[in-house]
Amino acid sequence: MTESGKPILYSYFRSSCSWRVRIALALKGIDYETVPINLIKDGGQQFSKDFQALNPMKQVPALKIDGITIHQSLAIIEYLEETRPTPRLLPQDPKKRASVRMISDLIAGGIQPLQNLSVLKQVEEELQLTWAQNAIISGFNALEQILQSTAGTYCVGDEVTMADLCLVPQVANAERFKVDCTPYPTISSINKRLLVLEAFQVTHPCRQPDTPTELRA
Amino acid sequence: MTESGKPILYSYFRSSCSWRVRIALALKGIDYETVPINLIKDGGQQFSKDFQALNPMKQVPALKIDGITIHQSLAIIEYLEETRPTPRLLPQDPKKRASVRMISDLIAGGIQPLQNLSVLKQVEEELQLTWAQNAIISGFNALEQILQSTAGTYCVGDEVTMADLCLVPQVANAERFKVDCTPYPTISSINKRLLVLEAFQVTHPCRQPDTPTELRA
Repeated sequence: MTESGKPILYSYFRSSCSWRVRIALALKGIDYETVPINLIKDGGQQFSKDFQALNPMKQVPALKIDGITIHQSLAIIEYLEETRPTPRLLPQDPKKRASVRMISDLIAGGIQPLQNLSVLKQVEEELQLTWAQNAIISGFNALEQILQSTAGTYCVGDEVTMADLCLVPQVANAERFKVDCTPYPTISSINKRLLVLEAFQVTHPCRQPDTPTELRA
Repeated sequence: MTESGKPILYSYFRSSCSWRVRIALALKGIDYETVPINLIKDGGQQFSKDFQALNPMKQVPALKIDGITIHQSLAIIEYLEETRPTPRLLPQDPKKRASVRMISDLIAGGIQPLQNLSVLKQVEEELQLTWAQNAIISGFNALEQILQSTAGTYCVGDEVTMADLCLVPQVANAERFKVDCTPYPTISSINKRLLVLEAFQVTHPCRQPDTPTELRA
């Protein structure tokens, strides 16, 4: 927390996991300060001694709040949900909550880890794009099918949930890696409906304190 | 559910994600039937049309329970926790719950996905062992440090939590991939204390209905 008591989010404008948490903070109206951690500059600021003390996984996001530091985006969102329940990001019905967590984990555990920067660095440079695309395509094939039985206006029913906070940043990654999203009409239309919401707009990678001028919009 | 109303777990004896769920079911005393899905035989039974209809991600575990099918191990465990709360696998204090979920996500999202079978298949054969070891070592380096501030008898305090259900199967994977665990005394001693508990013993990969005879113990 800052001296003013505000939570501090360690974030990188382009990190899809950071974006998930930014949306949760925005939806719940939690005022916070951003400390940018540039994953490229200085060989990666996440490797600094100071940051490693905060998050030994050397990843963003990390959130300092209520006297503790939490990392892992879904763990952060679940904590926010339990301590700041309004508006809720998990439905009341346990079966719908299971759907939300299943979709969130599919993206956060089944797609994103395989296409993130630190993994791609271990793959030969000319294979990196295909590697990332394969991870996204294989996950989206499954996700498109799952959404057909869970979705309403958004991923699960008609309320914005944690699953939507995972979906939009993952679709942005898909676009960055030039994945053709035509085979995913459900994913694409939910993404479109979410992107017009204020909480998704103000937290967008092109509008962060650390967004480079040439990428701002 | 079976005709008898028992939940059905689609599981593979060696799958660390299936093991997490088996422990949860055992701890909560939930009687269930196992349908083995052999990830190797027949080119991988998870790719069959029938199984893909159950889990489009083509992964175990999946649990049929209460008229729904849930996949993603942590989503399953959270559902069991919400619908069968005793004994609890998440502490009452939200800050401790955050620690449990942080450790669980670190393993389930930050280590296991990078060393699982489907990913290793994409890596050149002579590099597979090193690839898996690197993922585990990098995660364990972080985890060892985190546990130093969260652990009591187990990963978070003195009660068995979801984090422990992730830890033990991941240590088993580390051993399978010949990772030297000497640098991780906290991980190793918690693992040792957990392995003697009945719920961890009866769910062990060497004691499943689909465990091959030569691996049984």
